[in-house]
Amino acid sequence: MHTIEELRAMIKAELERQEYVGEPRSLYEPIIYMLEDGGKRLRPLLALLAYNLYRDDVEKALKPAIGIEIFHNYTLLHDDVMDDASLRRGRPTVHKRWNSNVAILSGDAAAVTAYKCIEHCDDKYLRRGIDGFNQVALDVCRGQQYDMEFESRDDVTEEEYLKMIYLKTSVLIAGSLRHGALIAGAPENEYMTLYEFGGHLGQAFQLQDDYLDVYGDVREFGKNIGGDIVTNKKTYMLIKALELAEGSAREELLGWIARKEFVPAEKIAAVTRIYDRLGIAGVARQKIDYYIEKSFETLERIQVKQAFRATFMEVIRELVGRKK
Amino acid sequence: MHTIEELRAMIKAELERQEYVGEPRSLYEPIIYMLEDGGKRLRPLLALLAYNLYRDDVEKALKPAIGIEIFHNYTLLHDDVMDDASLRRGRPTVHKRWNSNVAILSGDAAAVTAYKCIEHCDDKYLRRGIDGFNQVALDVCRGQQYDMEFESRDDVTEEEYLKMIYLKTSVLIAGSLRHGALIAGAPENEYMTLYEFGGHLGQAFQLQDDYLDVYGDVREFGKNIGGDIVTNKKTYMLIKALELAEGSAREELLGWIARKEFVPAEKIAAVTRIYDRLGIAGVARQKIDYYIEKSFETLERIQVKQAFRATFMEVIRELVGRKK
Repeated sequence: MHTIEELRAMIKAELERQEYVGEPRSLYEPIIYMLEDGGKRLRPLLALLAYNLYRDDVEKALKPAIGIEIFHNYTLLHDDVMDDASLRRGRPTVHKRWNSNVAILSGDAAAVTAYKCIEHCDDKYLRRGIDGFNQVALDVCRGQQYDMEFESRDDVTEEEYLKMIYLKTSVLIAGSLRHGALIAGAPENEYMTLYEFGGHLGQAFQLQDDYLDVYGDVREFGKNIGGDIVTNKKTYMLIKALELAEGSAREELLGWIARKEFVPAEKIAAVTRIYDRLGIAGVARQKIDYYIEKSFETLERIQVKQAFRATFMEVIRELVGRKK
Repeated sequence: MHTIEELRAMIKAELERQEYVGEPRSLYEPIIYMLEDGGKRLRPLLALLAYNLYRDDVEKALKPAIGIEIFHNYTLLHDDVMDDASLRRGRPTVHKRWNSNVAILSGDAAAVTAYKCIEHCDDKYLRRGIDGFNQVALDVCRGQQYDMEFESRDDVTEEEYLKMIYLKTSVLIAGSLRHGALIAGAPENEYMTLYEFGGHLGQAFQLQDDYLDVYGDVREFGKNIGGDIVTNKKTYMLIKALELAEGSAREELLGWIARKEFVPAEKIAAVTRIYDRLGIAGVARQKIDYYIEKSFETLERIQVKQAFRATFMEVIRELVGRKK
């Protein structure tokens, strides 16, 4: 059984081999650029961990695992164009460094490249593997569509929001686990249970991200605090605040949302004070804990060896045990 | 054996069933919009014709056939954003009617939808079907990349140009024929020969398009004459003219290319006169005839029944026998 560090090293080495790169190289440069900036490699790691539950020869799952990472980066490439984001993990986004056309086309090439890698599996798993991956890929598009539609709405419900982040973020995390287990020959009930586990984990992960934007430690969070507040991003925090705020708190919150000119630090401080008054931190922590609990419960349903359970716990801790 | 009209009617009916549409509908509206404006349905038609060479139950190939049409429209959706095109078949492009984000995201969803449809085949053909389709999809991206890079170059060679249009246009036409034959159980040498046939046909088709922009009849061509000349598009005509022009003709041509302000009709007339002097029409016709000849020769190599040959000839005539 492999440790997280070993698996991460294998993923890194496989990505650095750049076997996925074709001609012309200019088409692949933005993909290489996206992939070289690191990140947690969460999705390929989960795919390999799930594979390793059933088989030891994890090197056989490396191509599909990096295919999932390439797919993830393709969605980031296109999302950054749609959000007109300037920075990604501290570096200029592809459409800023090159231009939008490059980001669109190299993203398209990355999507096909991802499919090519993911399909490295025994023929007997191919149909289910592709069907599963198509479903994940469409769900991610659906989630992004809802996210864009929510931008112009002030009445997004908690339920709608949870569904959106499930589609946009959790499904790929779930699908990574499912794919790894599938191509290792796991029984159907187990790879579906791992999918469920990943769904809960993804929800906890995304809600934690929303929470840390307000209450995180900038050094540990890796991005500036309050970015979501400045841009009125419809996070779990804002949606719950809009749901719970009454009277003057509501007026003040809506006032900050409507204001076109403001000092960012002042808006962040004021909105955070409103969140404090409403107890949003506690509400969010409760929801995060709910999903962590659900993920643990789901994991109980599969025959996981004790050592594996410890490794999964380590991933969960790393993901959702970040500085509160 | 089905006639072209019958097959087109089946394709139309299958598209109108909209079985490919999922939730939220807003994600699929731009795809429906793209698909409802008609077009020749060349690619699904060729897929069905190739299938029909080996099997009568063409209804079984309908889903993959419309998958190929959806794929084609996905590439148009993203190309229109990259080219900032305003009109497509006489109607506003998706990014003009909605916006770029809609075109990018619905395009992404269309690509996955295409994969889902194309994979409707017996398991025994799945691996080769997907591998073939991944290759086609990447080649289309490669062609688009070369096309974008050619925009800023004045020294594109004929060879480079022919490779670019092969990747961008011909490969999908070739792949449509190959996929139809593959999933009908054609022997490998025959579905590969149909791929080769489609490649030559695609080249003739694209070169004809370049030719008609200069020498076409506006009523039959369906778009305005001279559009490529106005925008300095690197067509076969322009590339050959740049290769052949010397002295004053070369100076005049480069002058028109460099000019920022001009009356479109004057530029079209002047550049067409240069083409006339250089005999570009004859050069282009010769190249088109070369590819038509090659496509005929290739078709001879497969066991095609006489009736089928007549049908293929009808398609070829429709494609490349347009008003000269």
